[in-house]
Amino acid sequence: MHKSPSGSLGPGGLDLSQVFFKPIHNTSPPSPTKRHTKISVVGTGNVGMAIAQTILTQDLADELALVDAKADKLHGEMLDLQHAAAFLPRTKILASTDYSVTVGSDLCIITAGARQIPGESRLNLLQRNVTLFEMIIPPLAKYSPDSILMIVSNPVDVLTYIAWKISGFPSNRVIGSGTNLDSSRFRFLIADHLDVTAQDVQANIVGEHGDSSVALWSSISVGGVPILSFLEKQEIAYEKETLENIHKAVVDSAYEVINLKGYTSWAIGYSAANLARSILRNQRKIHPVSVLAKGFYGIDGGDVFLSLPAQLGRGGVLGVTNVHLTEEEAQRLRDSAKTLLEVQSQLGI
Amino acid sequence: MHKSPSGSLGPGGLDLSQVFFKPIHNTSPPSPTKRHTKISVVGTGNVGMAIAQTILTQDLADELALVDAKADKLHGEMLDLQHAAAFLPRTKILASTDYSVTVGSDLCIITAGARQIPGESRLNLLQRNVTLFEMIIPPLAKYSPDSILMIVSNPVDVLTYIAWKISGFPSNRVIGSGTNLDSSRFRFLIADHLDVTAQDVQANIVGEHGDSSVALWSSISVGGVPILSFLEKQEIAYEKETLENIHKAVVDSAYEVINLKGYTSWAIGYSAANLARSILRNQRKIHPVSVLAKGFYGIDGGDVFLSLPAQLGRGGVLGVTNVHLTEEEAQRLRDSAKTLLEVQSQLGI
Amino acid sequence: MHKSPSGSLGPGGLDLSQVFFKPIHNTSPPSPTKRHTKISVVGTGNVGMAIAQTILTQDLADELALVDAKADKLHGEMLDLQHAAAFLPRTKILASTDYSVTVGSDLCIITAGARQIPGESRLNLLQRNVTLFEMIIPPLAKYSPDSILMIVSNPVDVLTYIAWKISGFPSNRVIGSGTNLDSSRFRFLIADHLDVTAQDVQANIVGEHGDSSVALWSSISVGGVPILSFLEKQEIAYEKETLENIHKAVVDSAYEVINLKGYTSWAIGYSAANLARSILRNQRKIHPVSVLAKGFYGIDGGDVFLSLPAQLGRGGVLGVTNVHLTEEEAQRLRDSAKTLLEVQSQLGI
Amino acid sequence: MHKSPSGSLGPGGLDLSQVFFKPIHNTSPPSPTKRHTKISVVGTGNVGMAIAQTILTQDLADELALVDAKADKLHGEMLDLQHAAAFLPRTKILASTDYSVTVGSDLCIITAGARQIPGESRLNLLQRNVTLFEMIIPPLAKYSPDSILMIVSNPVDVLTYIAWKISGFPSNRVIGSGTNLDSSRFRFLIADHLDVTAQDVQANIVGEHGDSSVALWSSISVGGVPILSFLEKQEIAYEKETLENIHKAVVDSAYEVINLKGYTSWAIGYSAANLARSILRNQRKIHPVSVLAKGFYGIDGGDVFLSLPAQLGRGGVLGVTNVHLTEEEAQRLRDSAKTLLEVQSQLGI
Repeated sequence: MHKSPSGSLGPGGLDLSQVFFKPIHNTSPPSPTKRHTKISVVGTGNVGMAIAQTILTQDLADELALVDAKADKLHGEMLDLQHAAAFLPRTKILASTDYSVTVGSDLCIITAGARQIPGESRLNLLQRNVTLFEMIIPPLAKYSPDSILMIVSNPVDVLTYIAWKISGFPSNRVIGSGTNLDSSRFRFLIADHLDVTAQDVQANIVGEHGDSSVALWSSISVGGVPILSFLEKQEIAYEKETLENIHKAVVDSAYEVINLKGYTSWAIGYSAANLARSILRNQRKIHPVSVLAKGFYGIDGGDVFLSLPAQLGRGGVLGVTNVHLTEEEAQRLRDSAKTLLEVQSQLGI
Repeated sequence: MHKSPSGSLGPGGLDLSQVFFKPIHNTSPPSPTKRHTKISVVGTGNVGMAIAQTILTQDLADELALVDAKADKLHGEMLDLQHAAAFLPRTKILASTDYSVTVGSDLCIITAGARQIPGESRLNLLQRNVTLFEMIIPPLAKYSPDSILMIVSNPVDVLTYIAWKISGFPSNRVIGSGTNLDSSRFRFLIADHLDVTAQDVQANIVGEHGDSSVALWSSISVGGVPILSFLEKQEIAYEKETLENIHKAVVDSAYEVINLKGYTSWAIGYSAANLARSILRNQRKIHPVSVLAKGFYGIDGGDVFLSLPAQLGRGGVLGVTNVHLTEEEAQRLRDSAKTLLEVQSQLGI
Repeated sequence: MHKSPSGSLGPGGLDLSQVFFKPIHNTSPPSPTKRHTKISVVGTGNVGMAIAQTILTQDLADELALVDAKADKLHGEMLDLQHAAAFLPRTKILASTDYSVTVGSDLCIITAGARQIPGESRLNLLQRNVTLFEMIIPPLAKYSPDSILMIVSNPVDVLTYIAWKISGFPSNRVIGSGTNLDSSRFRFLIADHLDVTAQDVQANIVGEHGDSSVALWSSISVGGVPILSFLEKQEIAYEKETLENIHKAVVDSAYEVINLKGYTSWAIGYSAANLARSILRNQRKIHPVSVLAKGFYGIDGGDVFLSLPAQLGRGGVLGVTNVHLTEEEAQRLRDSAKTLLEVQSQLGI
Repeated sequence: MHKSPSGSLGPGGLDLSQVFFKPIHNTSPPSPTKRHTKISVVGTGNVGMAIAQTILTQDLADELALVDAKADKLHGEMLDLQHAAAFLPRTKILASTDYSVTVGSDLCIITAGARQIPGESRLNLLQRNVTLFEMIIPPLAKYSPDSILMIVSNPVDVLTYIAWKISGFPSNRVIGSGTNLDSSRFRFLIADHLDVTAQDVQANIVGEHGDSSVALWSSISVGGVPILSFLEKQEIAYEKETLENIHKAVVDSAYEVINLKGYTSWAIGYSAANLARSILRNQRKIHPVSVLAKGFYGIDGGDVFLSLPAQLGRGGVLGVTNVHLTEEEAQRLRDSAKTLLEVQSQLGI
């Protein structure tokens, strides 16, 4: 699918590149260990394409492979990206409905997911997503047995668990994008209010992605100034309700964007590219992402994925930050874990 | 529209940023000549948003303003970009249905355009676009009288002429994105065939954007090697028809993408961002874009915009490269100019 | 000095660029308000050149002007940067012993300074630096009356005060690089120990640049986790002396580099470029830099510059973060302020 | 040498990073094939450090190792780079007098070289450089058997040949920086004259690096316009001597910088980083670099390295562009090759 119609430039099927370039003497083929960086994106809807295009603009991969079941859409998206070749550093862009195109990926990002049919129960929808993942994950794992899997599809925590189970990968190589985006929204709201850059705001939302996520108020700092103790020392009264309202604004903001434009795309695209960079460039940076949470903060009872502040690098999840939670925060995490475990138990995985 | 719900962080309407930061003594307000870089994008459809998002990712502006008639869509797109704040350098993102949001822009990019109604004549469609531009251009020119206008809407050459007429701007400050994208597609096809990076390919398509564009075969070079003389010296025969087929593949590729995915977006987004960079960072780089072509290559008979290899910088169009055309190429340019002038004469502008 | 020997390409003094490019009709000259970004660097020693080269690599300016008293060295450094033109985005690089080359700068970075003569008193050295600044600052202020001054020369706090006095600029437009670099060293030591990226560490050193600087232990956080309270909650004992040792390692590290390689250059180059970016791209980011500290933390008795966590943007210093200090920390700041005021009083400025 | 003094943060030798981060369950160690990108630079003089610092600023490597015989200077340079950690993406920076620090490099850049002793013959100097390379190359080849070697030391063509012989590497993995920098200077002079960006100028200098290099006039183009045929079609007379003067200005410019500032550093730093990017990011870009030239343009009689327009990628030299030379140009290449072969025959390698 990659080969262009310019194949006819040379006469009689002559491969012009063989004429234009000549090899030097005494060469050897590239060593098999001399690998470039390859990212595959499964699903070329609004989210998948926002991720793919941001990865391309940020020059994060030497090779980018797209997979989707819809051949036409897929081919069109590939061509649309390829046509920008003169404006970007060289990245090889491939696309196919066949997973063999993903062979040798360093990172596979899954954005595909079933959509809710009107009247369908959440459990039924989830069961259909399990079926979908049973088609997606095994070929990815087969063609890239050493890759890291990043799940973006929702409900992200359960689907990350499912991808982990199906892939048989060690847990450090299966990550859900989780609350990385929620945390950026949180930082934006705080930065916008204080008129600072969001990069100066350290603030995390953890737990289950969605309505029951947990904002870690006690560890928010701006430019190195812990905000809650700042307010206390300035004797500025604030209501716990006020803080809850900000958290609520974060939770609501995804719904707000969906109501206004029909879907979310750009911010999740930047979020996934941000995670891809930390992983592939081995930045050892801390991100709130969905990881195997068993054993943290008293979460037990089974294998469950939840967002926690995790350090990411070439090896995937390098560790989880031992952040202090209030007992209430820890309890909310445990409650979410319990809910997720119940859902998982119904799936028969 | 920009102000976030976090306004409630401080109690009783207290502006926390006034508490968090204190001014130093003996300060002065910023000088009015200390300006940041501002880009406005009119139209937040697939093309406008691909441009806006690429500009944001490439960090080309300190302030980005979006304008569209659809308030909901517009607000949703603004929020979706703002939510990525933690992943990007700080850019102020504004959006409004009111053009006052564009005040003080350095560059205004117009992507809005009327869509063809089934059965509608091309002339009627164009007349509706003139009506649209009569609503768009005057407020842009009023709020940013020193800005550069970049027209992306199609038919780009006539609409660039119309924007020039309505704005009353000098011609160096009105540019159509023209064949900048066609030329990237052309370079991609050649680079793909030779397995080189498209950045090593110098190849331009000029003239009217669309079916009657002109590929400048005689000036194509790869890594500094002029291709046609290379083929001759290598005694590699090629048919003129072969070259025409490559040009045809370029012309067809826009239609191909539209057939496959329904619209084009990413490549035109990169193309416009590429032009924005050359202009705003004063790169004096040569791009094939739509400029006032009167007086070049024997084009006379009136004011007409066509793509020619133009040097772009802070002043807009700094000059047009005095490239050698074959008589056939020049004649095709003149023919296109004549056709465009006839269309323009029917518009009563 | 900028014009190259290629002037002889055209015969008989013909300006080839006039032949190669032709203007289009109806153009206008660029508006005087359409300004590019210009940075001037005074002093082309190891520090000045590390700053200039980092600014060039990071593409922070459209025009870069170098000033030094040594014409040969200056010309050589300019050519060495210009020769990299094919590897970088286009930046106009100028150099002259005459300050008129700096006209219209947005930011002037001063790295020039007198060196200590063996046996010379600190006061005498400082007095010679005052004399030097009396030659440097007035022409900079004359040619760029709206610019921001960034002082890198040492002793940075006193010299920033002197530059402020001589320039007559409002205090928000005179900044000393201060402890921005000390803070990066501090973050590196902490990040290296925890094996995280230094960008995840928020930790500031404030006060007088040098031996009496103040490490703000209480506001250090890593990935959003406040470190001191983390250690307490983990019941990990630490000695106050341990913390002092880390601070001492930071203070000593400048001396260590000087002992080992003879001078410092790269880190201060990155530090100044980092500040330049926040200022010129209006990032509103918080940096510990030397600002007019009167009125903060009980500092009174006169105008004195010390590093405090300041928010930087296009207007220079936008405000100072109202960070909580322990009484001991505040007292050390006041002691430093008193010492600096005594020095200043001896200078007769 | 890498471990910082902050080791004392935790009490009693406690490794705090083990407390701060906890591993998740079911993890596996990173796959040995999941490699990051590592560059080693041998020689930390002005050239080596300009290369290392540019590589760091441009974020080309995940790990950067420095080697030099002077332990103090080496340690100082390492610390000076490390101290910028807060201003840059995370790169692991190592330094040692022991080559084991280079283990697993993707690219090794050699800048070390003996300096001429007054009165020393060129041959004697070269013989001393051979002795030096016999100490440098074997440990590099041992610790990174799959790496690419880039030779920057002068005389670059002979030393690249020597590195190739000593290493036993296939010829595609041994590259001399050659005339890549001369070509940038050439482009700068042409771009400066035409007031265009040097990135729009395609112009190459090939052959022996230094006085006998060959400017490929017939293939120069600017913005896709071949310059010589442009001049002819414009009927602008030019003297062959004029062209020679421009070439002479390029050849002289290295001497000029050395005369003025004592050495060259920045431009060669950017040149080497530019090559590193094309190689490590597999850009397949064409650069004039020193490669095994046997068999090209009638060069025979033995193995000799000369700069030719070569395509670079992850595999090193992917091919040599089959550019057309005039008979005079080809003859000059053959003459250079003959001279170099005579020198090599005296070295007894």
